[in-house]
Amino acid sequence: MAEYDVVGIGNALVDVLAHCEDDFLAHHALDKGAMILVDEERSAFLYDLLGPALECSGGSCGNTMAGLASLAGPDRTVATAYIGKICDDQLGQVFRHDMRAMGVAFDTAPEKNQPTTGRCLVLISPDAQRTMCTFLGAATKLGPADIDPEVIQAAKVTYMEGYLFDPPDAQRAFVRAAELAHAAGRKVSITLSDSFCVDRHRAAFRHLVEHHIDILFANEAEVISLYEAQSFDEALQQVRGHCEIACLTRSEKGSVVFGGGEIHVVDAEPVAKVVDTTGAGDQYAAGFLYGYSRGMPLATCGLIASIAAAEVISHQGARPEKNLAELVGERVG
Amino acid sequence: MAEYDVVGIGNALVDVLAHCEDDFLAHHALDKGAMILVDEERSAFLYDLLGPALECSGGSCGNTMAGLASLAGPDRTVATAYIGKICDDQLGQVFRHDMRAMGVAFDTAPEKNQPTTGRCLVLISPDAQRTMCTFLGAATKLGPADIDPEVIQAAKVTYMEGYLFDPPDAQRAFVRAAELAHAAGRKVSITLSDSFCVDRHRAAFRHLVEHHIDILFANEAEVISLYEAQSFDEALQQVRGHCEIACLTRSEKGSVVFGGGEIHVVDAEPVAKVVDTTGAGDQYAAGFLYGYSRGMPLATCGLIASIAAAEVISHQGARPEKNLAELVGERVG
Repeated sequence: MAEYDVVGIGNALVDVLAHCEDDFLAHHALDKGAMILVDEERSAFLYDLLGPALECSGGSCGNTMAGLASLAGPDRTVATAYIGKICDDQLGQVFRHDMRAMGVAFDTAPEKNQPTTGRCLVLISPDAQRTMCTFLGAATKLGPADIDPEVIQAAKVTYMEGYLFDPPDAQRAFVRAAELAHAAGRKVSITLSDSFCVDRHRAAFRHLVEHHIDILFANEAEVISLYEAQSFDEALQQVRGHCEIACLTRSEKGSVVFGGGEIHVVDAEPVAKVVDTTGAGDQYAAGFLYGYSRGMPLATCGLIASIAAAEVISHQGARPEKNLAELVGERVG
Repeated sequence: MAEYDVVGIGNALVDVLAHCEDDFLAHHALDKGAMILVDEERSAFLYDLLGPALECSGGSCGNTMAGLASLAGPDRTVATAYIGKICDDQLGQVFRHDMRAMGVAFDTAPEKNQPTTGRCLVLISPDAQRTMCTFLGAATKLGPADIDPEVIQAAKVTYMEGYLFDPPDAQRAFVRAAELAHAAGRKVSITLSDSFCVDRHRAAFRHLVEHHIDILFANEAEVISLYEAQSFDEALQQVRGHCEIACLTRSEKGSVVFGGGEIHVVDAEPVAKVVDTTGAGDQYAAGFLYGYSRGMPLATCGLIASIAAAEVISHQGARPEKNLAELVGERVG
């Protein structure tokens, strides 16, 4: 059995990228910058109205795995696996191909025929903001039976995206994964993903963070929502004690990382021009988990996280374009 | 019945774009820069070996329709239709969506289940050259029955890509389209597409050009191959008299356009940096046919063609990124 550094659990989605005008968002009551869940019919309705599009693999956790693969470099110094649900259709083939092509083990049994592989319409408005309309499709079928105990037991860290709280059985799948991981002496990590998603599932998230999570990733809005706090500092005080390690990100203000009695205030990496902030959190998590799995000090993990996040916001798209192994190698011995 | 300016007939393909090393091309005996036909098994074999990829609609004639749509602008001053064969699968939906989203009428009945929608693995090597491995899939099923007489009769120009000579029934489909068009007093146009494709089907191309074609597009290598000539000028002398109009393109040397006793030597548009020459011929044809369908003088048609070609070689990808209507509007009254 292979030994993994990180196994990710996420909604397996293919992104469909198209440009749209602000009027389009307003007319269809789509909150700019938000992730909105839609059913298949509405997804098809909106797609029909959009201009020509590009397709590529996505999903928050899938993007993090892409970041880890880029950090691992051609020698694949980080071993990764992914658990997520596709259908055995062409978009599912695209998702699986891209995952495996990056060296990520991905063996979750696909759904047959229906529901189809999930897709995320990424609507890029003229100000370069992205509004996401997600049809979860086959991803809603992820359940406890998809959690392969051997994979979880073999992974230093089991990492999950908070968006998994939307499909009904995936929460149970994650709790099962967390229990398996802890029984094997492994670590469990989550990113809260989205403050609206936290709003939808606050009690469940709070329970999970207090009982199952060793390493928490959250941005300012998410952690404030989690504790219904009045300020970032208030939320920070609450989260201390609940998790062994927490990484709280604040966009251009950098991040706060604490764990094992240490606390580090990590500066954001300077970026010449912010082109598209999509994927910043996903790549931050990739960078941190890369350092963590290599046993690096927390401050170094935070630095690598910031470098990975800075790369991805410098261009369109949620997966790294530059070789992160090289970018990080120049800075970390 | 709508009136069309241009109806295009082509292989309906989805492009799968991936980067590869030169070694990969050599190891798999793929001629750099060529378009190679592969079967489904080999397409899947090569895809498995490739890194993460991007998917987008392609096909030579499909790219030309995208150019015409961009030239037509939001007011859609050019009416276009497309005839090509997809399967009713997800990649087929992608192709159809993109075509219709550009305002191109596209109603060819799709194949059911098999063969799947054709795809073109576009292998981008470090020098930015593109090597194409095409699995034609459903495109091989295009035949005379797919030629809708009403569409052809309603179009000023019926335009076909030479690549259609590879699938067996498409030649017959095109001859039928040409006969219908001429019986309705319309014009018939072809691009030779690829000198290797001309090599494969020289006699059929020569017969078509001599008997059915009013407007010919060919680059230097293609027209030399067509007539097995020793020089560009020798080929040019041969083609005169066979077609009412011919546009012979020569990359940075510009193009030669002749018709109705006129002959014009058209300069290539200056380009700051040539990034990717894929689609240059497709966009040249789009520009020329745009001008032609608007009744512009031949020299103006050639200028618009050169502007469209220059735009597409300035960036990655075979479809225009800038609004060609604006680019051309600045230069042509």
